[in-house]
Amino acid sequence: MKANNDNTKPYVIGLDLGGTNSVFGIVDKDGNIKKTTAIKTEGFASANEYVHSCVEALKPIIEEVGGILKIKAMGIGAPNGNYYRGTIEYAPNLPWAHDTIVPLSEMFSQELGIPVALTNDANAAAIGEMTYGVAKGMKDFIVITLGTGVGSGIVVNGKLLYGSNGFAGELGHVVIRREDGRSCGCGRKGCLETYCSATGVARTAREILVSDSRPSLLREMDPDKITSLDVSVAAEKNDALALEIYRFTGHLLGEACADFAAFSAPEAFIFFGGMTKAGDLIMNPVKESFKEHVLPLFKDVRFLISGLEGSSAAVLGASAVGWEAE
Amino acid sequence: MKANNDNTKPYVIGLDLGGTNSVFGIVDKDGNIKKTTAIKTEGFASANEYVHSCVEALKPIIEEVGGILKIKAMGIGAPNGNYYRGTIEYAPNLPWAHDTIVPLSEMFSQELGIPVALTNDANAAAIGEMTYGVAKGMKDFIVITLGTGVGSGIVVNGKLLYGSNGFAGELGHVVIRREDGRSCGCGRKGCLETYCSATGVARTAREILVSDSRPSLLREMDPDKITSLDVSVAAEKNDALALEIYRFTGHLLGEACADFAAFSAPEAFIFFGGMTKAGDLIMNPVKESFKEHVLPLFKDVRFLISGLEGSSAAVLGASAVGWEAE
Repeated sequence: MKANNDNTKPYVIGLDLGGTNSVFGIVDKDGNIKKTTAIKTEGFASANEYVHSCVEALKPIIEEVGGILKIKAMGIGAPNGNYYRGTIEYAPNLPWAHDTIVPLSEMFSQELGIPVALTNDANAAAIGEMTYGVAKGMKDFIVITLGTGVGSGIVVNGKLLYGSNGFAGELGHVVIRREDGRSCGCGRKGCLETYCSATGVARTAREILVSDSRPSLLREMDPDKITSLDVSVAAEKNDALALEIYRFTGHLLGEACADFAAFSAPEAFIFFGGMTKAGDLIMNPVKESFKEHVLPLFKDVRFLISGLEGSSAAVLGASAVGWEAE
Repeated sequence: MKANNDNTKPYVIGLDLGGTNSVFGIVDKDGNIKKTTAIKTEGFASANEYVHSCVEALKPIIEEVGGILKIKAMGIGAPNGNYYRGTIEYAPNLPWAHDTIVPLSEMFSQELGIPVALTNDANAAAIGEMTYGVAKGMKDFIVITLGTGVGSGIVVNGKLLYGSNGFAGELGHVVIRREDGRSCGCGRKGCLETYCSATGVARTAREILVSDSRPSLLREMDPDKITSLDVSVAAEKNDALALEIYRFTGHLLGEACADFAAFSAPEAFIFFGGMTKAGDLIMNPVKESFKEHVLPLFKDVRFLISGLEGSSAAVLGASAVGWEAE
């Protein structure tokens, strides 16, 4: 992490670019969000139109902190973001980027006249944890984001692991079930994401409602419409099937983490995203399963929940990428 | 990799510390082994006695290159070696280190008066490939050693990945079969090592001789005495069962590499050790299986065989660790 030595430029802009919303924050080096704004990500015919609308939305808040000269750089966390190239590549959920490579860093840099760095959302979360969150001072850790999908950002020796092509850390697509594995959106089978994402939890719910005959609050719903939120609400009411769904999910996640530990010997796993709100209901099965499956050499790894929870976490992560922009 | 700028000290000592033999080489910065010697690793009551004998064996060859002042440092590749601490820890195959922590770097450094660095054998192989071998100029690659066990050395952004405790890169103990997995020496089940090491290949041979009724040269042997060498000899004669054993082994290794690629997005996998002598017989099934299992993002990874093959490879790897000693 580079120090921000330029006191005349005390801020960075963070952009959390999601499939639905694009949320901006102007952030100082302690992680205080000074100003914020947002636009819809959808509804643009081209990346050019999108960037133009972003800049229009940013102008007033940039003025409010003293103008663009006060801003060192911009950081973007985006799906399918490539740090090396500053691009978004074939992002299935972004209509203006789903079939092409968009040089988003360069486009923002030209419009704003400041350096821009971009990475995928999970990497942004990892840099955010290291800059402002529970990973401050850690040099080796893995952030796992549990959302619609499962993402990861791997930090090794104090630096994000990008690998030879900028796409390292796709741990959601490590195969955790090689026999009868669930079909994944990536076209393969048995990926961790098909079990441990929010959608994976909903799939597990539908399976367990069939295979386990115990009564459950979840039986009152249309199985096709059950979400991970429904499972978490039922689990908080001690619903036996909902708890079983978390045990199953946590068990697989713990097995996977045991393998990940053998790779990079992290000091901690840090979980990020909506599903972490279930707290111990999900974390306890993860830890138990990890302990059961891990090589003794790696048994001391800690399990933490993001220190950046809340709606501003992703913006903070993105802004942290900005401090590294050159 | 640090440059060797001190022309008055043109050499390093490399020690390949194996369970049976300890092989020494005095090596220049181009990877030429100027002098070599060896002692048995076994037969010492204590680590002190072992180090003392090593130094006695080294003295004449040190003199032959012009004395200890010509030597910059020493590098050691050893089982259960910890780079951060310079120790060998609970190495099951070393009688003088199997139940304790031996500060081997410090012991050699005191005896010889030069800096000493130590790492495990697979990490030494990776540093060796980067310094003298096929990984020259690469910044992200994974060396997988296929020997009695399966080891690995992972290089990320030009540096060896040691992780928080110095033991990162235990890819031989990633679980590749979660159902009915083979028992591993580590106490767990289904580890890659139980299938893809030389001993794993011999286990596969015994299984396939029972499950597959085709004729085979391997049927002429006592099944309990079959080794991976026997399999390779039979495979070279186009023996159908031996080829099937390699297909099975390569298939699992390819599956595993597909997951490893999703972790660190390496430019290449480099295979090292006796089993690589089988060449395409093992590498082709690995590549086919990798292509079948990998996420498209990582499909361009290359598969290479060590450039340091032969009896001196391990010594060269160890010596390369020496150039990094301080």
